[in-house]
Amino acid sequence: MDKVKRNERLAVMLHVLGSAPNRIVPFSTFCEMFGSAKSTVSEDTDLLQKMALRYGLGKVETLTGAAGGVRFRPLDLGEKRRERVLALCERLEEPDRVLPGGFLYQSDLLSDPSAVSDMARIFAGVSYPLLPEFILTMETKGIPVAMLTAQAMSLPLVIARHSNKVYEGSAVNISYMTSSGRIETMSLSRRAVREGSRALIVDDFMRGGGTVNGMRSLMKEFHVDVVGACVVLAVEDANHPIPQDVKALMLLSRGEDGQTLKVRPGDWL
Amino acid sequence: MDKVKRNERLAVMLHVLGSAPNRIVPFSTFCEMFGSAKSTVSEDTDLLQKMALRYGLGKVETLTGAAGGVRFRPLDLGEKRRERVLALCERLEEPDRVLPGGFLYQSDLLSDPSAVSDMARIFAGVSYPLLPEFILTMETKGIPVAMLTAQAMSLPLVIARHSNKVYEGSAVNISYMTSSGRIETMSLSRRAVREGSRALIVDDFMRGGGTVNGMRSLMKEFHVDVVGACVVLAVEDANHPIPQDVKALMLLSRGEDGQTLKVRPGDWL
Repeated sequence: MDKVKRNERLAVMLHVLGSAPNRIVPFSTFCEMFGSAKSTVSEDTDLLQKMALRYGLGKVETLTGAAGGVRFRPLDLGEKRRERVLALCERLEEPDRVLPGGFLYQSDLLSDPSAVSDMARIFAGVSYPLLPEFILTMETKGIPVAMLTAQAMSLPLVIARHSNKVYEGSAVNISYMTSSGRIETMSLSRRAVREGSRALIVDDFMRGGGTVNGMRSLMKEFHVDVVGACVVLAVEDANHPIPQDVKALMLLSRGEDGQTLKVRPGDWL
Repeated sequence: MDKVKRNERLAVMLHVLGSAPNRIVPFSTFCEMFGSAKSTVSEDTDLLQKMALRYGLGKVETLTGAAGGVRFRPLDLGEKRRERVLALCERLEEPDRVLPGGFLYQSDLLSDPSAVSDMARIFAGVSYPLLPEFILTMETKGIPVAMLTAQAMSLPLVIARHSNKVYEGSAVNISYMTSSGRIETMSLSRRAVREGSRALIVDDFMRGGGTVNGMRSLMKEFHVDVVGACVVLAVEDANHPIPQDVKALMLLSRGEDGQTLKVRPGDWL
């Protein structure tokens, strides 16, 4: 019986922790759930810790003190990380993705749950230490990966718009220049973010960094610190080196022939 | 030792299944993972089945045949369902959400991971039987809930745009009329969906159903069946009753005073 009980406790605990990644679950929650003593629950936690590491699931961490409890953080895939990114690179190099004008079709990849959760786990894993308080993205293609990153960090997602919407209330608008030299507008509801909080930028694509810089200036207006940025695909460009605080999952460049597109993992991976 | 092994197997199996909801994981995957016999793995599956139900985590199902294996489907929260929706209704009724023009501010709720995963679990739970092959939404506010629904069903997400983008390739554009009588355009890349497949529409808001009808006509152009639609919030309007195949999580109406806004759970909940 007790054996079954432990089986259950471990499986259910890991499931509960895994469904709310990065959130601290108080020991008491599990004590009540299983009607077991705190000592039992913390024994279980130790077992889960080893188990989660051995199978590369993530980090189970015990936090002491008033706000104490157990926290699960999905591993940023460990050694599997580079391998997964290489697989994404291969998919993006499929020849039929090149569109008229030399654009790369990537919308399917950017909303494929399993591909996007790989991206999000890697972004979350590298960003936990930055202690962001919310995720910021700009509509539209970056929203899925930004949302799964927000979920993996249990943080709210904030979406900047191209223009002010009536149902967003009063908003702050800024203008920014895109890589192609166009002036565009970025708009964010006044009530969307708290002054003095910390933002992590997540976006799908970077060419020259116009949009990311736009989001930086937008955050200045809100007196918000940008603690870092994660982008799925960045164009390699000698004139626009990728800033230190920007983690690009994949780098896009032209092959010698100037025609074929090459995609490789970011150097930090 | 063997005791520990079973502890591990159950916890890791449930975690693996839970991280790819609705996806069929072959028994062989677990046999290799643990170096155990198929008989052992199926014993474990039976245990998980009971466990997952007892703790209201979801349904662990065994599928036999060539494409056989184990599948986990998060429960649509069971009896907790209505309770969770009522909590969302309360949040939407907070007086300071009413914006100039009588609009309701809901962007925060629509990108709060825990609120959105509740919505997504309910949408997924009610939609599994419809056997959709992809999730369709229209930019922008509906994308987070559409993405988590796609994740909960392990289906690709397809995002219709307001206008054709160069990086989407050749697209099909249709015009549709909004509740306010404006004519708008909806655009979708030709390569985004496969002819003859089945779509589930997920959107954040419905007033009169202009956008949902737009998505229906867009799918006609692609010869795609719309098997159903899920919306987070629908305006109650005698002139525009909510269609049979549309599941609205919450219903919005004006109080007697014609001023205050009332939000209640959909009648199907």
